[in-house]
Parts: sequence; C-alpha cells; structure tokens
Amino acid sequence: MTETRWLTSDEREAWVRFAAVLELLPGVLDSQLQRDERLTHFDYFVLAMLSEAPDRTLRMTALATRTNATLPRLSRVVTRLEEQRLVARSPSADDRRATDASLTDAGWRKVVHAAPGHVANVRDSVIDALTPAQVVQLRSISDAVLGRLDPDGKLFASGS
Amino acid sequence: MTETRWLTSDEREAWVRFAAVLELLPGVLDSQLQRDERLTHFDYFVLAMLSEAPDRTLRMTALATRTNATLPRLSRVVTRLEEQRLVARSPSADDRRATDASLTDAGWRKVVHAAPGHVANVRDSVIDALTPAQVVQLRSISDAVLGRLDPDGKLFASGS
Repeated sequence: MTETRWLTSDEREAWVRFAAVLELLPGVLDSQLQRDERLTHFDYFVLAMLSEAPDRTLRMTALATRTNATLPRLSRVVTRLEEQRLVARSPSADDRRATDASLTDAGWRKVVHAAPGHVANVRDSVIDALTPAQVVQLRSISDAVLGRLDPDGKLFASGS
Repeated sequence: MTETRWLTSDEREAWVRFAAVLELLPGVLDSQLQRDERLTHFDYFVLAMLSEAPDRTLRMTALATRTNATLPRLSRVVTRLEEQRLVARSPSADDRRATDASLTDAGWRKVVHAAPGHVANVRDSVIDALTPAQVVQLRSISDAVLGRLDPDGKLFASGS
C-alpha cells in the first residue's frame, strides 16, 4: 500500500460539486424523457444512435460501443424496445451469427418526437448554463476522464 | 412551442463526451466500493457526510440536503445502513418530531477503512487526469450546472 494522497482543497471543492452533478443530472434527464415519452435517457440514446446510422441499423456490438454499454445491458434494453415495437433485431446480412438492431418506423417517429424536448432539457440543464469557453473546457475535461474510464478508446465518445 | 435550438457542433461534441462520462463514471465509483467495501457510492457519501458532522450526527433533512437526495430516497438507504449497524436513527434532542441519523462506531471504522481506496479511485478516474487549471474549470462548470439543477441553492454542494 502506498500512502493515500488525499484531495487538496481545490480538488475537493471541484469533486464535491462534480459528484453532486453526477448524482442529480441523470435523474433530470430521465424524468423529462419518462414524463414526456416514457423513455429512459439510455433508451433515448440507443434510439438516437440507430437513427443516425446508415439504414438506421447497427450491429449489436457496434451499438453497445456507441452507447458506452456492455452487451448484456444493451440486450436487456433492446428487448424492452423491441416489445414496444421501436426496434427490431435480425441476423446480420454479412454474418448470420451476428445480430443487427434496426429502428422501426415507429422508432423513428419516436426519436423525431422526443428530440426537441430532450435537447431543450440538455440546453436548460447544462449547455445554456455555460459560456462558449466552458463548453470547450467541458469537452477537454470529458475527453481526459474518458481516457481513464476507457483507456483503450473502444467507445464511440472517446474515439470520435 | 418555440422553435428547437439544436446543439451547435461544439456543443454536441462536448455533450456526447460528457454524457458518456455520466453513463460510465457512476459505475466505476460504485464497483470499487461494492467490491472492496460492499457499499454503493451513495452509501459511502452518506457515511462520509455523517463522519464530518459534529457528534457524527445530522438531522435527516440536513443529511438529505448534503447528499443531494430526496428524503424518501435517503430514508431507504439509511434503513439499509441501519440494518448493517453503520448508522442509528433517534428522535432529535431539540425537536422530538424530527429524526437524527448518527454514525455508529462500526460506521466510523467503515468510513476510515473505505476512504483511501475511494480517494485513490477518484484520483485515478478523474482528478489525476486533469491539469490544475482543469480542476478549477470543473468546479466552475459544476457550479453553473448545479445552479440549473438546484436553482434555489438548497443543496450543500451548491451552497458551500
């Protein structure tokens, strides 16, 4: 065991506040989407990633990467979205052992309907609270943290 | 309905990365504490806030504020911590209708045992990835976001 390097006062001030954001923000994102669209923030993110893909289709492994999720977690969510007829799964055309997830027409309409309210909430809770300089700082800070959370750069958000 | 102000490219770059941090970091904080201490990050935060209070005791309403939690959520967690003999509840001395939560001796030993591993994880995942300037930026950014999430400044993290 090496000796503990306790947080300095600057570090502690930053961490206590950032930990509060981590605690509160996911609930704010979830509750707007739950109330208005009966979707979690993660559901929305899955649908949005499919909506931006060619043919609105991604292999499940690629979708897991883009949504920063493990495959088991993604599979559970896609099963639920499939029951709601928003997503459909099928064997991949070029590898029948692999599985594709596609946005259905109902799924597309759901994203189009949900996007304005979600973006307004993201602006209201985060982006519009920041100066343009802080938006750029937040990108660099997030990149630095993702470099620790995902050191191999496997995830979409740290790779793009 | 006003027209949707979609995110600019800078804003989107920042948001996609920050959303990935929001998605991944809580799991990283939880898994270290679960693995090493059988505590969630929120459990730890509750115990840590009590450990810093006079007599290691806070009124439940004050503890809810300091941990950015609603009273029903905090009550569920404190019930679980009470079953583990880490926290004890009792009527407040100066208002018998109110309830105090106190850290037990076992709860104190638990915090003292858990703190070094948790702080090492916070350093490794976040703080040590940032420059000193970014630590200061993260504090200001978090303050700005907390101003939106908690506009009345009721929470400890935005008030101190």
